[in-house]
Amino acid sequence: MSSVAHTLTVELGRRSYPILIGDGVLSDSALLARHVPARDVLIVSNTTVAPLYLDALERALSPRRTVATLLPDGESYKTLDTVARILDVLVANRFGRDCVVIALGGGVVGDMAGFAAAVYQRGVGFVQVPTTLLAQVDSAVGGKTGVNHPGGKNLIGAFHQPTAVLADTATLATLPPRELRAGLAEVIKYGLIRDAGFFAWLESQTDALLAADRDALAHVILRSCQIKAEIVGRDELEHGERALLNFGHTFGHAIEAASGYGHWLHGEAVAAGMVMAARMSCESGLIDGAALARISALIERMELPTRVEGVSAETMLQGMRMDKKVLEGQIRLVLLRAIGEAFVTAEYDPQRLARTLDAHLC
Amino acid sequence: MSSVAHTLTVELGRRSYPILIGDGVLSDSALLARHVPARDVLIVSNTTVAPLYLDALERALSPRRTVATLLPDGESYKTLDTVARILDVLVANRFGRDCVVIALGGGVVGDMAGFAAAVYQRGVGFVQVPTTLLAQVDSAVGGKTGVNHPGGKNLIGAFHQPTAVLADTATLATLPPRELRAGLAEVIKYGLIRDAGFFAWLESQTDALLAADRDALAHVILRSCQIKAEIVGRDELEHGERALLNFGHTFGHAIEAASGYGHWLHGEAVAAGMVMAARMSCESGLIDGAALARISALIERMELPTRVEGVSAETMLQGMRMDKKVLEGQIRLVLLRAIGEAFVTAEYDPQRLARTLDAHLC
Repeated sequence: MSSVAHTLTVELGRRSYPILIGDGVLSDSALLARHVPARDVLIVSNTTVAPLYLDALERALSPRRTVATLLPDGESYKTLDTVARILDVLVANRFGRDCVVIALGGGVVGDMAGFAAAVYQRGVGFVQVPTTLLAQVDSAVGGKTGVNHPGGKNLIGAFHQPTAVLADTATLATLPPRELRAGLAEVIKYGLIRDAGFFAWLESQTDALLAADRDALAHVILRSCQIKAEIVGRDELEHGERALLNFGHTFGHAIEAASGYGHWLHGEAVAAGMVMAARMSCESGLIDGAALARISALIERMELPTRVEGVSAETMLQGMRMDKKVLEGQIRLVLLRAIGEAFVTAEYDPQRLARTLDAHLC
Repeated sequence: MSSVAHTLTVELGRRSYPILIGDGVLSDSALLARHVPARDVLIVSNTTVAPLYLDALERALSPRRTVATLLPDGESYKTLDTVARILDVLVANRFGRDCVVIALGGGVVGDMAGFAAAVYQRGVGFVQVPTTLLAQVDSAVGGKTGVNHPGGKNLIGAFHQPTAVLADTATLATLPPRELRAGLAEVIKYGLIRDAGFFAWLESQTDALLAADRDALAHVILRSCQIKAEIVGRDELEHGERALLNFGHTFGHAIEAASGYGHWLHGEAVAAGMVMAARMSCESGLIDGAALARISALIERMELPTRVEGVSAETMLQGMRMDKKVLEGQIRLVLLRAIGEAFVTAEYDPQRLARTLDAHLC
C-alpha cells in the first residue's frame, strides 16, 4: 500500500515536480525507486536527524550506492564553508553529473544540500526529504537554496528546483515543540498573505496544532504547499508575486542577523517580523486595530515571540537594508491590505517604520 | 563614432545577449550606458589587467557608483575562497540585487566574477569585458562560470549568462605572446569541431596570427564567437551538442589538474589535449594519419605543446574520470570523424586510449 496521502505538483514546465505528503514516505522503497533516478546518491543530513531516519532512508534507497555526510545542527553553520565540505565529499567519492543529492532534515540542511547540488558540476539532481514542519510547509518547496553571510541572511545562493519533495508526516512526531511552533509561524504566513479562511481555521485549531495532532498537521502541510506551489509556479525567480512569501521576513532576517545566527529559530524571527509588518500595515492605515490584534493574538497563542530584546532600531534598519528586495537602495516591505491579502511596496512613511520598530524592540 | 565593428547575438529567448567586438569598446561610454543598466557596479579584475584598463573602464562607466576588486593573477587562484572574497566586497558595499558585476580580464577573472554574480543574492547582472584572446573567443561567451577544486577543473560552478559581452580588440596589443598562442588553441578547436574551411584558413594565416595582426585576429574572434553562439543557442545547458566545445578538454583538464593549476595555461593544455583526441580518433580508425599530421602540424606551428612531461597515464586517467561528461562512471570522449566534424562517444577501446596517452606522455 502506498504511503502517499496527498500529491501535488509545482508547475514549472519541464522542471515540474511532485510534492508527496504522507506517513512513511521516506522509507517507501517503491516511491524512492521512482523519484531518485540515480546510481550514486549523497544524503546530506545533520547530527540530530540522522540517528532517527538515516538508516531507514538508506535501506529504502538500496541497492543504490549511498554516501551520507552529516553537518553540525543549527543556523550558525549555514555557511559557504559548510557547503564547501559537502562539495569535498562529492569530489572525494568521484560522483558524476548524474548523481542525486538528498537533503534529509530541516531548512538549514535543505538550503545547504540544495546549494551544493546547484553548484556541483554546475548542477546535479536534488531531492528534498524535509523532517521539520517549517521545511515541509515552506523551505523544501520552491527551489531557493543558499547560505548566510555575516552581513545578511541567505545572501549567497541559487535557484535550484528539486526533482521531488517527500514530506514524511511521521517525522513530526519526534519534532521538538519549539521547532513545531517555528513551523507554525510560516503556516500563519500563508493565511495572512493569501487565505483569510485558512487563517480563521488556524485560529480555531491552536490546541490541536500545538498538540501536534496528526490530521490537523496534515491539513496544514497540504494547504501551505498548495499556496506556495501556486505562487512559485507563476513566479519562480521572484520577479514579482513571489516576494509576498517574504511577508515578515525583511524584519525577521534583520532580527536573525542582529542576534547572531542560531539564537532565534528562523520561524520565531518570522513570527516577530510578521507582527511588525502587521503593525506597520496598521500604522499606515491599511488594516485596522482589530485585525492587528487578531494577528498578534494568534502568534501569541502559538507561543511565538512578538518582541525583540537587545537590538536597536538602527541595527534593525541596517539589517533590513541588506534584504534582497532592496531596489536602488530603498527597502521594500510586504504589507497587508487585509488578513489574506498582501502586497509589496516601497511607499511608506519612515517615521511610521520607526514607530513600528520602537513598539517591538526592548 | 561607434567603436563596434561586429555585433552578434547569443539567442536564448528572454536571456539573449549581444557580443560587441571592436577597437575601444571598453572605453565607449555611450555603449556602456546602454549595456550596463545599473546604479552600482562591481568591476572584478586582476593585478595584471587593472593597471592597463581599469581607469578607462571606470571613466566610461561614470557617473555610476563603481567599486573595483583585484584578484591575484593566475589559474591557481581560481578557487571558492577567491569567490568568497568577491562576495565579501559586494556585501561590504551593500550592493543590492539590482547591481551589475563586470569581469575585466581573461578567462579566470570571467569565470570567478560570473560565479560570484550567479550566487550573490541568487543572481545579479553580469557583463563580460574579456581582455585575452582566449576569453574573447571562448570563455566569455556561453554562461559557464565556476572555480576549480583540487580534485578537478571547474567542478564547482553555475550556468549564468552575461547580459552583454564587450570584446575590445585593442586589448590584444598588450597580450603576452604566450597568452595569444593559448587563445589560438581554442580558435583551432572551432575549426576542428565545426568548420574545415576555417581550419584551412588558420593553416594559411599562422604568421599573421602569431604576429597579432589586427585584421586576422578580428576575423578569428568573429568566426569563433559565431560558432560558439550557434551551439550555445541550441544547447545552453549542455544536454548534447554543447559537449563538442569540450573537444580536447577531457585530456586538457586532466593535464591541468595533474600538473597543479597554473603551470599550464588552459589553452596550452587544450592544445596538447586536442592532439591526443585527434590521435585517439586516428587510433580508432575515424580519421587518417594525414589528418592527424595536419592537426599536429598546425598546433606545433602555433608554438603550442603537443606532449606532457612528468605525468603518468594512470594520473591522466584518474583526472579524466573527474570530467563532467562522465556518465555512470564511464569517461566520454569528444572525437573527430573528420577535420570539421566532432562527436561525443563512450564507445572506444581502452587499449587505444592507453596507446594514445603513451604517445604523448614523457
